[in-house]
Amino acid sequence: MDMIILKLGGSVITDKSKECFFKKKVVDNLSKEIKRANKEIILIHGAGSFGHIQAEKFKLNKGYVNKNQLHGFSVTQERVQRLNTLVLKSLQDNGIPAVSISPHSVLKLDNHKLADINYKIFEEYLENHFTPVTFGDVVLDKKLRFSICSGDLLSIALTKHFKPKRVIYVIDVDGLYTSNPKINKNAKLIESSTIEQLENFTTSLDSHADVTGGMGGKLDAVKTITKLGINTILVNGNKPDRLYNVLVEENARSTIIYGGRNEKN
Amino acid sequence: MDMIILKLGGSVITDKSKECFFKKKVVDNLSKEIKRANKEIILIHGAGSFGHIQAEKFKLNKGYVNKNQLHGFSVTQERVQRLNTLVLKSLQDNGIPAVSISPHSVLKLDNHKLADINYKIFEEYLENHFTPVTFGDVVLDKKLRFSICSGDLLSIALTKHFKPKRVIYVIDVDGLYTSNPKINKNAKLIESSTIEQLENFTTSLDSHADVTGGMGGKLDAVKTITKLGINTILVNGNKPDRLYNVLVEENARSTIIYGGRNEKN
Repeated sequence: MDMIILKLGGSVITDKSKECFFKKKVVDNLSKEIKRANKEIILIHGAGSFGHIQAEKFKLNKGYVNKNQLHGFSVTQERVQRLNTLVLKSLQDNGIPAVSISPHSVLKLDNHKLADINYKIFEEYLENHFTPVTFGDVVLDKKLRFSICSGDLLSIALTKHFKPKRVIYVIDVDGLYTSNPKINKNAKLIESSTIEQLENFTTSLDSHADVTGGMGGKLDAVKTITKLGINTILVNGNKPDRLYNVLVEENARSTIIYGGRNEKN
Repeated sequence: MDMIILKLGGSVITDKSKECFFKKKVVDNLSKEIKRANKEIILIHGAGSFGHIQAEKFKLNKGYVNKNQLHGFSVTQERVQRLNTLVLKSLQDNGIPAVSISPHSVLKLDNHKLADINYKIFEEYLENHFTPVTFGDVVLDKKLRFSICSGDLLSIALTKHFKPKRVIYVIDVDGLYTSNPKINKNAKLIESSTIEQLENFTTSLDSHADVTGGMGGKLDAVKTITKLGINTILVNGNKPDRLYNVLVEENARSTIIYGGRNEKN
């Protein structure tokens, strides 16, 4: 498909150190750039400080342990929905006909792995020229009763199904570095990479987190996606025009990881 | 099932004359009474002034007429989601493990009539001891591309499927009257009625709206439900303790319409 899967990281759209702090200005800028680029998009956003703090507190990712977690699940669901509503409003205010698809209503996990997902609802909104927006959420889990569905899990599932032209991760650093740019001043941006180079590179380091500087375990998602033969781009969401330039395939400071195998998956 | 389907009317939870005005105090009181009654519930709420004004402006219930409506659909979806988030928060703050189920993600209409609905997701949250909360929403429509799914349509569909013990409509008057209580001072509350009495009564009047004084066409939903053999109760959401008393089957000023035919539908 000539479509793009676009993931806005939780650390870009929220301040992760402050509970339920929405970065309205950053999101408004991104909405404007998305509108200006005028592409067919499925948008995914992280839960950031609307989700992680409560999910951690109630240990929701461990599945059902005690009755108190019902309250924790419910509170987390409300908070990520609140964040999603703010993202929706920003997109709409900037002319994008966004429609929310809540993971906890359309998908189910089984021991943290995807068990069922209603792809059709995404397709139907796309066919009707809407922009589906989904997000990191709490969901039911066949084995654990409930667990957490991350934005990264969604990006893999939707990429496998829709085979978009490109997958773009909007993060809070410029891309992938030779070492952690938040610690090491000599860290250099890797402007492009193949999946093979990436594999060699990351296994030679102590921890993935070191090189991603804010992306956490996202590299696993990137690897899975590039193995499907689809190019993945990492771009900084805090710098003006970069997302726009990436969307319209113009030059922008970013990291592109080329889809390794051009199989028709 | 020993469960109750509870519909909070849009005119109870919002001020219908003011765009996006949420009646927090009223909803907080209702949340407290629902918690205190401690029943298994599926909750439905209307869209009130978060939905109707935009839906009217963009003529969303006529289906697709022009491109501008995509924006209208999207704006309406965001607003009713915003209202739903406020309702969720009130329920949770009062100890109810509420989880939202958005109609636009789980059901589809066909020329305003129900075509598909994922009942299973409601069942699964109930089984896990959550309180599912759904609401009047914009949805996809097979014939019209999109249209409106009212809380009343949801109450009929969920009642047919779940066969709850009772259906309770929380409205902004005390119940059903002999004439419109907002106009006629001599209007008398009908405390109980059978479906046959209701049929005779309403056909002898010019318009249903006259006797419902704020319920609009809701009587059609009430009739459909009572014909399934299920008791329907109309109760005022603005008066303290009435909803609680109705929930626990104690005396309260209200109207009960007895389920007419005890068929197993």
